[in-house]
Order: sequence, then C-alpha cells, then structure tokens
Amino acid sequence: MSLKSPISNLFFFVFLLLITFSVASKHRFRRPCRHLVFYFHDIIFNGHNAKNATSAIVGAPAWGNLTVLAAQNHFGNVVVFDDPITLDNNLHSPPVGRAQGFYIYDKKDIFTAWLGFSFVFNSTEHRGSLNFAGADPLMNKTRDISVIGGTGDFFMARGIATLSTDSLEGEVYFRLRTDIKLYECW
Amino acid sequence: MSLKSPISNLFFFVFLLLITFSVASKHRFRRPCRHLVFYFHDIIFNGHNAKNATSAIVGAPAWGNLTVLAAQNHFGNVVVFDDPITLDNNLHSPPVGRAQGFYIYDKKDIFTAWLGFSFVFNSTEHRGSLNFAGADPLMNKTRDISVIGGTGDFFMARGIATLSTDSLEGEVYFRLRTDIKLYECW
Amino acid sequence: MSLKSPISNLFFFVFLLLITFSVASKHRFRRPCRHLVFYFHDIIFNGHNAKNATSAIVGAPAWGNLTVLAAQNHFGNVVVFDDPITLDNNLHSPPVGRAQGFYIYDKKDIFTAWLGFSFVFNSTEHRGSLNFAGADPLMNKTRDISVIGGTGDFFMARGIATLSTDSLEGEVYFRLRTDIKLYECW
Repeated sequence: MSLKSPISNLFFFVFLLLITFSVASKHRFRRPCRHLVFYFHDIIFNGHNAKNATSAIVGAPAWGNLTVLAAQNHFGNVVVFDDPITLDNNLHSPPVGRAQGFYIYDKKDIFTAWLGFSFVFNSTEHRGSLNFAGADPLMNKTRDISVIGGTGDFFMARGIATLSTDSLEGEVYFRLRTDIKLYECW
Repeated sequence: MSLKSPISNLFFFVFLLLITFSVASKHRFRRPCRHLVFYFHDIIFNGHNAKNATSAIVGAPAWGNLTVLAAQNHFGNVVVFDDPITLDNNLHSPPVGRAQGFYIYDKKDIFTAWLGFSFVFNSTEHRGSLNFAGADPLMNKTRDISVIGGTGDFFMARGIATLSTDSLEGEVYFRLRTDIKLYECW
Repeated sequence: MSLKSPISNLFFFVFLLLITFSVASKHRFRRPCRHLVFYFHDIIFNGHNAKNATSAIVGAPAWGNLTVLAAQNHFGNVVVFDDPITLDNNLHSPPVGRAQGFYIYDKKDIFTAWLGFSFVFNSTEHRGSLNFAGADPLMNKTRDISVIGGTGDFFMARGIATLSTDSLEGEVYFRLRTDIKLYECW
C-alpha cells in the first residue's frame, strides 16, 4: 500500500493536468450554459405609418431616399430600430424588452444585412442586456450572429444567436425569431 | 498512515476537480482584474461651432436634418464623434486619448442611444485601444455597456463599462463618466 | 514512504492549484490558436463606377454629399461595403468570401476610421463568419482591431486582426491586408 501511493499520486497528477488544460483553454465544451428564444418585430417607416413604425431609414446611397428602401436590394440603407421583443410570435403579446440598434443592407445582388444591436430587457424575468453583432444573409433560412457581451442578468455573456425570418410582409413588417445559445455564462 | 493515503488522494482529486470546473468554465469570479475611470467630452456640430465641434450628425430620419437633432427624441440621428478622453471632468485637461466611433438615437418616446466606439489611448500610461458596444438609455443615472475587446495594453480585454452623464449643456455639450471594469485580462 | 505521502500530496495540491489558476483566469497564453491572412478590396462608388463599385457613401456631415468623400479628412462619412476577400493581393483572384459591413471616418485632422464588419466565408476551406470591431487609424502602417466573435468554422472565436493598407489608389480603390490571430478557439 505504501508503495502504491506515489504511483497513484502520479496518476492523479497527470489526469488532473489533462482536465485542467482541456477545460481551461482550448477544447471547451460546445454545450450552451443558457438557451433563450425571443421574437422581435420591425415596422419600417414609409412616410405614412409614423404612429406604428418602430424603425426608420436614416442613411441611403446616392440613388436612394429616406422613405423608400433603395434599389439594388436596398444596398446602402441604414435603418435604426426600437422593436418590441415578445416571447411568442404575436406582435401584440406583452413585450419583455426592446431590440435597439441598427441594420445596414450591404449587398447589391441579394438581400444581406449587417446588424449591431442590443436586447434591452425589462421584465420580471430578465433585467439587463445582450449585445449582438454580425452578418445576416437574409435569404438563408437560418443565420448565426455573435452575442458579443451582456450586462445585468447576462453579465459578460457570449454566445451565438440564430436568426430566422418568421414573417415578412412586403417591405413594411418583418419578424425575426432569435434563438440564443450562450456558451459563456458568469 | 499508509491506509489513509488513498483516501486523502481521493479527497484531493475531488477537491481539485471542483476547483478546476468552477474556475475554468462556468462560475467565474465577478472580481475585476482591472479598474479604470475616464471622462470623455462631446461637442456636437450645430452649424456654428465648426472649430470646437468634436462630433457631427451624419444620418437623420426623413423628418430631420444634419445640423439640428431631430424631433421625437432625436430618433434616427446618427452621430460620428472624435472626443477627447481626460482623467478628470475638465474638458481642458490634457487628453490621454480619443473616444472614436458613433452613436445612434434609437427611441421615439425617450432619449436612448446605441453606441459603437473605441477608446484609443496615446499617453505615457496607456497604449492600445478598448472597444465598446451596447445600449445607452441616457435617462438612467448609470447604464452598462460591454467592453467587447481590446488591443495593445488592453490585449483581448473584456468587461463592463458603466456610463453616467456627468454634465449636459443643452444639445451642444455632454460629458460621460466611464467606469471600466475588466473581468478578462491577458 | 508512508510518511512522505501526505507531503507529496500537499505538493501536488499546491502545484495543481497554481496551474489551474494561471491557465484558467488571468495569465493566459498569448500564443494564437489559429492564424489566417486575407486581403479585401474596396472600390467606392463615385457616381461613375456603379458596375465595379463594392461600397457606397451612405452618410455624410452637413458639409458633404453622397458621391464625394467629405472635406476635413472625410470626417463623418459612413460607407457601407461588400468587398471580395482573396487569399493574395490580386483583386481578380477567386474570392473566398465577402467582407461586409461599414466604416466611418471619424477624425477631422487626419484619416481615421471606425470599422464594424464581418468576413463571411463561402469556400471549400472555410464556412462561417468572423466579426470585427475597432478603430482603424489609417495612417499607421499597422493597426489592431478586435475579433469579437465568430460562427460556423469560427464558432465563438476571439482574437486580434492586424490591418495594413496594401494598396491605395486615390479615393477609389484600397486593399487591406488582414492578419488574423485567434487566441480563443473552441
């Protein structure tokens, strides 16, 4: 027994070393520590819907204007939004927060956007914010963007948000399903 | 004694395993590894202050223009800035760097903005940059945004920046206190 | 031997504790887990090159317009881009993806920009995206921005991208070398 001890110590040492390295630096687990699903609803200002609009064109290329999305797949349009976030796909459900930020249409051939925005929560269930950035190739069924940070209940969060267009009504209304998987939780 | 050894080994094993997991992946410490406080000063161009202005309106909704912040709580205004950073709240203190980037007013009912910017340091004390993104509900006394990255002295930094409006003079000048707590330092 | 065992256990304990802490939280390795080099090519719309242009001015200060970059080092110009990414410095090499997003000129005295964009890969070698944000003081030979996230092959990536201007032809064409070092790989 007394002879076995140093050997078993060595075994533990190597074993723990392996665990330490594998967990800590490179081969992290791809299992989310938090999973959330939300919907947000965007109604773009078209010159006639000031009361209901939740977003507005604020930048346009030389060939565009500020009430109609530009030709060439809206390339160059900058849109600022303050959209309600709901737990289901009903625009009239009680909002749990607001999606606030901007998107930019950034391709001439097809619809593609770049997003920089936050989910700002203000409900009994969640307080704080999640910050997002990334490319949104709208025509794909699902597209992944990055969760680049968070505050409050989402302190220091990182992860992936998978967007899918849940509804699209002409150029006035769209609804995005946002499936958020956090892989860094504090 | 020789009998106790395997038991104590087991104890160490379990203990270290717990530490490894708690430190490495999920339950990280919420103690900042670095704490910094700065002020930055924004003087918006209003058509008459070209010499002193550090920021300018570069995007506006259909109902706005580029020298006056728009109606409806400036919803849709995009402002680009290059603001001096100081160590105290005096605009005329020697700047230690520049706050560069943009903000977007993104709510019709109240003042709220979305920020994307960097602190670019160029002083004897700090070299490098910190990058920020997040929602800034201006009317709150303090609001948290994310430190999403850093370079140079702030290589790979992540954290939280707590903003508070230290001064607000009409629509021309404001000063933001920026309390930066980094939780990931390399 | 039986007496030595608890002492050696203690040694292991302290040793492993040190490793755990050093690896996990503070003193991370500054050795990239992935290193990639790309070039991207920007041809700005000037009113006459609609067919070839890959970017367009979509925001300008009061003293600017949307076909000519503004006076005062283009301060306030917002440019949206969809630029081809190549493996070498030849604009006509087969693109491996697109650099999509925006840049903002944000200083009156010298050329400086703020970038928010993604590399969207679509080649046999890479699928997925890398998201970037940061200050780009153009006149410096090299400048570092942050890799703030990634998706697909670049799931949860973080790192530093070092930009250098590889070519600059007046105000119509520039090419950026992008040396990407990832320090967080999953």
